[in-house]
Amino acid sequence: MRKSEVEDGEGGLGEDDPAAMERAFEEMRVPPWQDQITFRAMFTSLVLSIVFNVIVCKLNLSTGVIPSLNVAAGLLGFAAVKAWTVMIEKCGLLKQPFTRQENTVIQTCVVASSGIAFSSGTASYLLAMSPITASQAETGNTPNNVKQLHLGWMIAFVFAVMILKYKLTYPSGTATAYLINSFHTPKGAKLAKKQVWVLFKAFVGSFLWAFFQWFFAAADGCGFSSFPTFGLQAYNRRFYFDFSSTYVGVGMICPYMVNISLLIGAIISWGIMWPVIESKKGHWYSADIPGNSLHGIQGYRVFLAIAMILGDGLFQVVYMAVLTLSSFMQQLVHRNESEDEREEGDSVEDYNESRRTEYFLKDQIPNRVAIGGYIVLALISIIVVPHIFPQLKWYQILVAYIIAPVLAFCNAYGCGLTDWSLASNYGKLAILVFSSWVGLQQGGVLAGLASCGVMMSIVSTASDLMQDFKTGYLTLSSPRSMFVSQVLGTAMGCVLSPLVFWFFYKAYNVGDPEGTFPAPYALMYRGIALLGVEGFSSLPENCLMLAIGCFVAAVLINVLIVVLRKWESKYRIYRIIPSPMCMAIPFYLGGYFAIDMCVGSLILFVWQMNNKKQASELSPAVASGLICGDSLWGIPAAILALAGVSPPICMKFLGAAANKRVDSILGG
Amino acid sequence: MRKSEVEDGEGGLGEDDPAAMERAFEEMRVPPWQDQITFRAMFTSLVLSIVFNVIVCKLNLSTGVIPSLNVAAGLLGFAAVKAWTVMIEKCGLLKQPFTRQENTVIQTCVVASSGIAFSSGTASYLLAMSPITASQAETGNTPNNVKQLHLGWMIAFVFAVMILKYKLTYPSGTATAYLINSFHTPKGAKLAKKQVWVLFKAFVGSFLWAFFQWFFAAADGCGFSSFPTFGLQAYNRRFYFDFSSTYVGVGMICPYMVNISLLIGAIISWGIMWPVIESKKGHWYSADIPGNSLHGIQGYRVFLAIAMILGDGLFQVVYMAVLTLSSFMQQLVHRNESEDEREEGDSVEDYNESRRTEYFLKDQIPNRVAIGGYIVLALISIIVVPHIFPQLKWYQILVAYIIAPVLAFCNAYGCGLTDWSLASNYGKLAILVFSSWVGLQQGGVLAGLASCGVMMSIVSTASDLMQDFKTGYLTLSSPRSMFVSQVLGTAMGCVLSPLVFWFFYKAYNVGDPEGTFPAPYALMYRGIALLGVEGFSSLPENCLMLAIGCFVAAVLINVLIVVLRKWESKYRIYRIIPSPMCMAIPFYLGGYFAIDMCVGSLILFVWQMNNKKQASELSPAVASGLICGDSLWGIPAAILALAGVSPPICMKFLGAAANKRVDSILGG
Repeated sequence: MRKSEVEDGEGGLGEDDPAAMERAFEEMRVPPWQDQITFRAMFTSLVLSIVFNVIVCKLNLSTGVIPSLNVAAGLLGFAAVKAWTVMIEKCGLLKQPFTRQENTVIQTCVVASSGIAFSSGTASYLLAMSPITASQAETGNTPNNVKQLHLGWMIAFVFAVMILKYKLTYPSGTATAYLINSFHTPKGAKLAKKQVWVLFKAFVGSFLWAFFQWFFAAADGCGFSSFPTFGLQAYNRRFYFDFSSTYVGVGMICPYMVNISLLIGAIISWGIMWPVIESKKGHWYSADIPGNSLHGIQGYRVFLAIAMILGDGLFQVVYMAVLTLSSFMQQLVHRNESEDEREEGDSVEDYNESRRTEYFLKDQIPNRVAIGGYIVLALISIIVVPHIFPQLKWYQILVAYIIAPVLAFCNAYGCGLTDWSLASNYGKLAILVFSSWVGLQQGGVLAGLASCGVMMSIVSTASDLMQDFKTGYLTLSSPRSMFVSQVLGTAMGCVLSPLVFWFFYKAYNVGDPEGTFPAPYALMYRGIALLGVEGFSSLPENCLMLAIGCFVAAVLINVLIVVLRKWESKYRIYRIIPSPMCMAIPFYLGGYFAIDMCVGSLILFVWQMNNKKQASELSPAVASGLICGDSLWGIPAAILALAGVSPPICMKFLGAAANKRVDSILGG
Repeated sequence: MRKSEVEDGEGGLGEDDPAAMERAFEEMRVPPWQDQITFRAMFTSLVLSIVFNVIVCKLNLSTGVIPSLNVAAGLLGFAAVKAWTVMIEKCGLLKQPFTRQENTVIQTCVVASSGIAFSSGTASYLLAMSPITASQAETGNTPNNVKQLHLGWMIAFVFAVMILKYKLTYPSGTATAYLINSFHTPKGAKLAKKQVWVLFKAFVGSFLWAFFQWFFAAADGCGFSSFPTFGLQAYNRRFYFDFSSTYVGVGMICPYMVNISLLIGAIISWGIMWPVIESKKGHWYSADIPGNSLHGIQGYRVFLAIAMILGDGLFQVVYMAVLTLSSFMQQLVHRNESEDEREEGDSVEDYNESRRTEYFLKDQIPNRVAIGGYIVLALISIIVVPHIFPQLKWYQILVAYIIAPVLAFCNAYGCGLTDWSLASNYGKLAILVFSSWVGLQQGGVLAGLASCGVMMSIVSTASDLMQDFKTGYLTLSSPRSMFVSQVLGTAMGCVLSPLVFWFFYKAYNVGDPEGTFPAPYALMYRGIALLGVEGFSSLPENCLMLAIGCFVAAVLINVLIVVLRKWESKYRIYRIIPSPMCMAIPFYLGGYFAIDMCVGSLILFVWQMNNKKQASELSPAVASGLICGDSLWGIPAAILALAGVSPPICMKFLGAAANKRVDSILGG
């Protein structure tokens, strides 16, 4: 129930009477598609793209948990252009009013661009190729399997595989469209103003808080991010509240169950499993290997997490295939029946429908252009990628481009049913397949990781395209203007994403498991590639057994959810069963960000208790503000770090005994 | 304007139509005075007395700034008895309903008792006699002028001088009465319930926050109370936010101008004057005397503060004398006129008036009983006090008891005009007079401090009595029941106050200028006594000159306020002129608590901006909750300290350089 409440809340942004939505806009002229892509829209998109690239990059490098930021993008885009047009209008210079089509264009461009930051894999498969990640596992640490990161080839590679991916990553397209529509109704505009104001306050507060925190973090282990909130013992097991407003905000956006799953995962792993395994130190694994080696405790952490994620992923793929097939069957039998079942099928809706269809079909992209484009891009990839990664042969890429459309179709169909893209699961499978195909000696690790990028981008494109067109359709934006804005957004993303990543990579010790930016997915992805080239021989003792246990557990939990969802509709217990995917993330990282996110949940919960309407209207704005403010402090902080300016104070947490030693030393 | 807003807010608690107040209670039976003093009322009073004694003692020992706690006392008293009666009623055992008279009795008893905690001088003139305070000034540190603190003689002394002082210390009696009346109207009861609930939440939050803070304070200089919020440089100048919810609450109760005055005082002293004086180290004063000696920088801090306080105090005394005289003159001339000027003089009020007068006169205490009591108590003091302090002769106490009534009359009259008792100013003057009369060799320091206690208690009694009777009159409580409850409250206070102080004294390093409980007034009072016995010869170089400057400045500021208040009524600038008395307090302590209090002001200000009605209704409850919760954590904390349990973690703040040293040591 809680999860659905949140979703209702998000969907409900000004959605009072969606059926009559198009009536409200009847009088408004729909500008031709060239006029939907204005200079101001593109400029706003660029600025917001940079902002969201920084945010996504920071999230990616710290935990890899990324919430849907499209409410934030929508609000910020609306606020920026609105402020601009109001200002210009006051000067009497306004030529073109701000339309919802323009807003959709900005939204599409920004989300496409920041989506690249995630799927370009800078923090996952690209960073997994780097020496720093490779050094954490002895095997595979050969010149053939390691590639020094450089801005040049990274941008080239991202361009080669991503240019296909003009996409809108996370949002459910419908919710986004309703959001944008709502900004442009009188009532919605008032609410949007309130939301923008709340977002601004949260943003400033969060930014200042991050700024304040900075002063106390003179060195590693200093500052609020090392605050042993529950005591030093719990801190050593990575249970603490690290005062990160980013993850509090993320927790407010994510459904309650995600946060609770993360916390459960943290308790099971860091609270129970790791202490037990560590007690076998010197027994199951050598006691004198460095702490971050994959042959020690770190190996258990990484491979058990991988097992759980793969178990969940594989189940989802199989389940989706079954669902797709059975849905096809049903469609053939009850075609008409299923159309009657559509939720909004009455006469008021018909007006919306017909007007939307009219505008949407006007600028339809012909099928053969799409297919032609795909072939051209495949050719480009086949030529470019082997130049960057000699380990990957041209025919292997060709195979990828041939298999991909099939998987993409599956994914797109599944995504349409469940609103959940499994692209990254297909990517992980690609790592396994291609790395074992190429083999360790021929650089299979790198080949697997590179193919992951290729595969992920193709598979996700198909499903994302569907979502995008849905958004455009609901705001009467021209598919052509959307297409152009996505291409532009993707291009921006392809340049910005490696650039921003490079910025962080140079400023911080990215990939250090103990540091601020452990980039957990880099090690995970490399771990999967190692499994592909070496099989299970690389795992420490008993790790395989435990990993199989995790894999099976993940599958069983999913089966349980499916079964309960189908046959137990009274209490709907399936809603309180944790998700294995979410549970696996803290296996490697520890519970601190799960605690942050649960604090976010708690805030949201109390807020909803006190004022449900206000909470559902304003909490996404507050959360977005918290995330943006804290993350944007990352820019000046990174600049300071690059300039060699370190904070003046260290807030240190010492046990009573250590404190006595320190006092005697500092005093004497 | 802000100040008056706050006052309106406090006075306005349910005071919607005060004129018709008595009509609302017309049907209710007024119980005879014996029935107003019930067992449950006395028990509640005892528990609350302990609570408020702890709070006042903690405030006294940490900064000496004590806000009006009568809203808290009223609310807690109401909540406790109401909860009890409701419970009993549900069991069908209620014999006597909870009346506002009973509530007044509790209120009176609690405030009388906790008032003793302040005026018993445990943290000022009694602690000033102790060796730890004496050691901070070389002169006067002789056996004759130092008295080891012991529970026995402290209770005896407090009883001897305080039994006279059945009093209601801080509150404006009218506001208290309205508050209690408001609890017992249907609308008021609803508001009171809301206030109690808010108070409870603030209480729990504040208590838990204090509990949480405890874990990080393993040693001195650790924990949130040493948080260099504005950097280490500012911290060394005692500018930091120490996360004390007590003083945030105090700041919410005190008028804005008090908090701003404190901050200005802190900036002038610790920001400007002390750095300048410290730059003269080795020049104006010897560089190798200990930091807490009154001959070093500490001397400037203490004596400049004393000069400012004395300047302000003397001005007030003189001004009040002038005012009293001129008011007498006026009264003789325009007697009738002034009666017409009374604010509430219409016919609706007449009903209230007559009913109140009727009940009030019923149980009037005859004049000769009062005078007889005074003489008996004077005799007791004359016999007992010289036994405790052989330095003070019986005839000196007699003199005190003869002069006192004259001063008491002045004070009572002035207090009636301005609602501000100057008792502690008379006390300070008494220190000066008596210590110089007795002289250093005969133990003048102790004699002066002891006489301060005697004088303060007599002078304040007269004015307080007036206030109390006003409260009783407005709630139709019998003066006799009030008298009895005050005597009981005073007796409780006389035992509890030294006991609670003793508890803190044993558990902590009370009086240490660098510690949690510096007890600033102890050193100030001893400083005044030293001035009395030694004259100005004990001051370090240029200190006299600066002190005279401060004294003159204090007088001039007061003159300015009086002049502006009289002749500049358009902008009412006088309201934004800081009070010298307030400015002097941070001279010794530094700005940290002023910053806490300004944070409280800020919270109140923002709250008032957002929702003025809610802020005025609930902010006193929130503030009381914050103060009570944080202060009450003092009890378990002191018990832990007595039991030798120290917190497990030290949150330490190190400069970047020191941190490197510590890291290399802890690492190696």
